[in-house]
Amino acid sequence: MRTAVVIGTGLIGTSAALALAGRGVTVHLADHDPDSARTAAALGAGTDEPPAGPVDLAIVAVPPAHVAAALADAMRRGAARGYLDVASVKGGPRRELEELGLDLSSYIGTHPMAGRERSGPLAGTADLFEGRPWVLTPTPGTDVEVLNLALELVALCRAVPVVMDADAHDRAVALVSHTPQLISSMVAARLEEADETAVRLCGQGIRDVTRIAASDPRMWVEILSANPGPVADVLAGVAADLDETVRALRALQSADDTKRQGGASGIEDVLRRGNAGRERVPGKHGAGGPAVYEVVAVFISDEPGELARIFADAGRAGVNVEDVRIEHATGQQAGFVQLMVEPSAAPGLTTALRERGWAIRQ
Amino acid sequence: MRTAVVIGTGLIGTSAALALAGRGVTVHLADHDPDSARTAAALGAGTDEPPAGPVDLAIVAVPPAHVAAALADAMRRGAARGYLDVASVKGGPRRELEELGLDLSSYIGTHPMAGRERSGPLAGTADLFEGRPWVLTPTPGTDVEVLNLALELVALCRAVPVVMDADAHDRAVALVSHTPQLISSMVAARLEEADETAVRLCGQGIRDVTRIAASDPRMWVEILSANPGPVADVLAGVAADLDETVRALRALQSADDTKRQGGASGIEDVLRRGNAGRERVPGKHGAGGPAVYEVVAVFISDEPGELARIFADAGRAGVNVEDVRIEHATGQQAGFVQLMVEPSAAPGLTTALRERGWAIRQ
Repeated sequence: MRTAVVIGTGLIGTSAALALAGRGVTVHLADHDPDSARTAAALGAGTDEPPAGPVDLAIVAVPPAHVAAALADAMRRGAARGYLDVASVKGGPRRELEELGLDLSSYIGTHPMAGRERSGPLAGTADLFEGRPWVLTPTPGTDVEVLNLALELVALCRAVPVVMDADAHDRAVALVSHTPQLISSMVAARLEEADETAVRLCGQGIRDVTRIAASDPRMWVEILSANPGPVADVLAGVAADLDETVRALRALQSADDTKRQGGASGIEDVLRRGNAGRERVPGKHGAGGPAVYEVVAVFISDEPGELARIFADAGRAGVNVEDVRIEHATGQQAGFVQLMVEPSAAPGLTTALRERGWAIRQ
Repeated sequence: MRTAVVIGTGLIGTSAALALAGRGVTVHLADHDPDSARTAAALGAGTDEPPAGPVDLAIVAVPPAHVAAALADAMRRGAARGYLDVASVKGGPRRELEELGLDLSSYIGTHPMAGRERSGPLAGTADLFEGRPWVLTPTPGTDVEVLNLALELVALCRAVPVVMDADAHDRAVALVSHTPQLISSMVAARLEEADETAVRLCGQGIRDVTRIAASDPRMWVEILSANPGPVADVLAGVAADLDETVRALRALQSADDTKRQGGASGIEDVLRRGNAGRERVPGKHGAGGPAVYEVVAVFISDEPGELARIFADAGRAGVNVEDVRIEHATGQQAGFVQLMVEPSAAPGLTTALRERGWAIRQ
């Protein structure tokens, strides 16, 4: 790939353009707002001049509702050899394009699983996609040349290609992204009217469950509006479990032993299925099943430099810390830092840190 | 307080005994399993010999279902000046004691908001309660002397006392602890039968939402069995939001513009209420409202010592890192470490780290 046009210079479009431009591809930038394209160009993402003729790849990075129109326009102009979009939903845009009667052999729908809290060209960064899954949804009618252009884009962005059917993709993101977002919001919504004293009892569990409830509502309305069916289907499954669980809890209030036992097994069932599902969530290193780390919990004060000293001491012990969680005492300035390490490394790390004067939780 | 008896030497009982014994209190340990009491004694938590006469405080740390019986037994024997339990639910045990016709002026129900993944005396640790809220549920009939004994226990364990009504406590933990546990399990349960390709798309959002779904089902069946009413009430509120959200998503599939707009506002409403609720979740420093940190994302390789170097460089810049999240690339060995810092410290930290050669995400 030597030339590309990026249509839509928001976060995703600008980030892809920065990655391509940084690796020698000539990138032309277009946006319905010329200021946005000019900003992306000023950041080094390419030029906002139109190309003289057809480019190798046209990347459409506009909001889901405008994807089909932008693609159709570029295809009718013969802007490129291959066309792709990067919208977070894949079935709808493809069906819209089919209804427009376009030849879709030169088109492939894609979705990079990357994003951040900020939007717009200024939030763009060449490494946004590094190591992230980038879903490609070819069909039997997709030109191999176009699939290869898409794979080249993914490689230049240093992402990890994952091939899926468009509708399977939409069901997958409904399951692993859109449903958790809505459920997190619903749990957090329960706190809106809660007593201040109740809120004081919040611990790390609810903190984790509600973290993404802080997400931008407008962006999420757009995403969910493009994928309502699959999300509603997953939520209906959750709703059935929820109704069953409420029934089980009511049975636990019964005076009848048999009913109470039935309630307890209903509760245990949902907790056990939760265990099984959680085991399937990949650890941060992805493939290879769930990461199982040992936690070494070290007591720290809240002074600058304490964490540095711990990590320096762990480094001297030759131990690679795989993940970190700071477990601060509510309302206090001291707490524990949980170092997650390979189980084989935990005893050595514990000994090494103790020798250097750290208090380790047993 | 000079003498105490701890009845039930599991995780909580042994931890409290270790804290008291470490601060000079003579602690007697009792358990229905003498081996467990002997183990706790061997750890330095006290003696498994019975006391010669009444002690200052009897701490009942048995599973919720056995709390009332154990308390009644100790009270009838006149084992102590004051009696308390540490069960995770408070309304039920009090009502059971009332039904037994006991004088409850010498009793106070309490609940330390602390725990860990492991159980039994060997998991006990003197610092388990440090900085954690410890709920006390006195009534107008509670002797001031008994309340003061409980406050002394909380202080010796270095926890933070929070006074609440017993039923308000049970509703609060239903909201901030028991409901998030069940909902996390339900979201994770959806993954049990998911395609492997779908599971590969899991990101940090679902990872956080489902973290506590890995909890021990048997322990949670016990906890939930002791608090079914308040949990069912909170879940019923979630269920109503969920049904409304499924309806809104179905409306988004409609061909009718007005219906679609109604669907979009329904979705936006639940997301906005989620924003408002999330803002109430205390940050790790507890009181003082939500902690708002700025994130500085630094690119790291996965070599031992990389984190140490970052924290050392942050320390040299005089910046206190408030929280850390390692954001690893799926299936890759490199990624970003997110340093959460006070907003005023972020620009200086970014500059200092850049000067030392770190790549910072813009």
